[in-house]
Amino acid sequence: MFTYELDFKVRDYECDLQGIVNNSVYQNYLEHTRHEYLLENNVSFDLLHQQGVDAVVARIEMAYKTPLKSGDEFVCKLYVNKEGIKYVFHQTIFRKSDNKICLKAKVDTVVLIDGKLAASHPQLEALMNV
Amino acid sequence: MFTYELDFKVRDYECDLQGIVNNSVYQNYLEHTRHEYLLENNVSFDLLHQQGVDAVVARIEMAYKTPLKSGDEFVCKLYVNKEGIKYVFHQTIFRKSDNKICLKAKVDTVVLIDGKLAASHPQLEALMNV
Amino acid sequence: MFTYELDFKVRDYECDLQGIVNNSVYQNYLEHTRHEYLLENNVSFDLLHQQGVDAVVARIEMAYKTPLKSGDEFVCKLYVNKEGIKYVFHQTIFRKSDNKICLKAKVDTVVLIDGKLAASHPQLEALMNV
Amino acid sequence: MFTYELDFKVRDYECDLQGIVNNSVYQNYLEHTRHEYLLENNVSFDLLHQQGVDAVVARIEMAYKTPLKSGDEFVCKLYVNKEGIKYVFHQTIFRKSDNKICLKAKVDTVVLIDGKLAASHPQLEALMNV
Repeated sequence: MFTYELDFKVRDYECDLQGIVNNSVYQNYLEHTRHEYLLENNVSFDLLHQQGVDAVVARIEMAYKTPLKSGDEFVCKLYVNKEGIKYVFHQTIFRKSDNKICLKAKVDTVVLIDGKLAASHPQLEALMNV
Repeated sequence: MFTYELDFKVRDYECDLQGIVNNSVYQNYLEHTRHEYLLENNVSFDLLHQQGVDAVVARIEMAYKTPLKSGDEFVCKLYVNKEGIKYVFHQTIFRKSDNKICLKAKVDTVVLIDGKLAASHPQLEALMNV
Repeated sequence: MFTYELDFKVRDYECDLQGIVNNSVYQNYLEHTRHEYLLENNVSFDLLHQQGVDAVVARIEMAYKTPLKSGDEFVCKLYVNKEGIKYVFHQTIFRKSDNKICLKAKVDTVVLIDGKLAASHPQLEALMNV
Repeated sequence: MFTYELDFKVRDYECDLQGIVNNSVYQNYLEHTRHEYLLENNVSFDLLHQQGVDAVVARIEMAYKTPLKSGDEFVCKLYVNKEGIKYVFHQTIFRKSDNKICLKAKVDTVVLIDGKLAASHPQLEALMNV
């Protein structure tokens, strides 16, 4: 089902005073995984932006299952599909030590070209056939 | 409807290479607003943690409406209700210049006492009558 | 001596697993204070960047004196002088409850115009007479 | 000269509106490298903290040489020596594509045991003979 995965290790500065990874940091993990996935498919988030094309998050849902702690290794997996004009990323984070699910997310993105909503973009559309 | 609000101003380091506030940073704004709301009602997130009581986010949904930019001033408003054992925070961020909605969020939190799920906590329960 | 100051309050997400503000976060406080100081003097870091002018940090020294904790209120003060082609920001953070020094910093910045080192920039030079 | 090194890749969320890695983020890289170095030598920053032992940064000096950008791979190298009661980390970040120096840092750390300054700690002292 998943078409891409990226390995990570928790960094201590990502943990908060509860001693676990702060909730907002998971969004960083998710974003970095999406961008690396795009790069692997020859789509650069940064270059697109310089050409006036921005893939932006319209909506995100995250279910926190098991907290990550200092030193934990984990993998972030994803697959993408299209719903209307939205490119929807389905992302799950698994703790490596026991394969437990830490977080499940659904990330709806849309394409803006020169700031206007676009129905699609060739480079992103190509991903639908991966 | 809203029972609490907190003023903010975008800090440049919160913006990413698209020139807008990074998506994950909104979660920081939301969390800080919740914690300030709790403090105003004499509940300290930090002190509770030291007593073995952790209010943790189980699920979050965020709809991104209008991006915040360098220098923007905004207000984050909230109200809370209870659904089963969950304390649900409804939070909306408004840009001050034109009162436009930037983000709408629903944050489901649960209480862990010594790491175990609890149906309620007196200090949080008291908030339901505010 | 100081020509500008800005008030802050610690946000819980800025604290790490030691229960104190993470060292890197102080640089965020310092940067935000410098940018607000510039804005107050009609210099926008963001607009300058869009015109190809970037004020960049070449060197920073920070002495950590007293750690900030959850909920602490503090003030970040600064003054600027020029040493050769460098605009040097002298910044000190004071805890509000007892006026104790939390951090002392010296931040050397230089101006890049279209990526090349410049001896000065009119808008920044004007600050030297403030 | 260097006794430890760790590989990294820039993540887009670490870049700011200038399109380069934000200055404060380098401190995250440096801290993570120090903690991984300690772990490799069987010293856990997190476990030490739980035992009342905190290695804290007293002073940091950083010289920014070449900015890192979206997608850059880099390596952070370090060696440690002792000056008085301070454990001093010397850290340099090199861009992998051309081995150019991005940042040079000197990080003075001291040990607090139950909040009081200590002259040394056996686990850290052992590193001096590595």
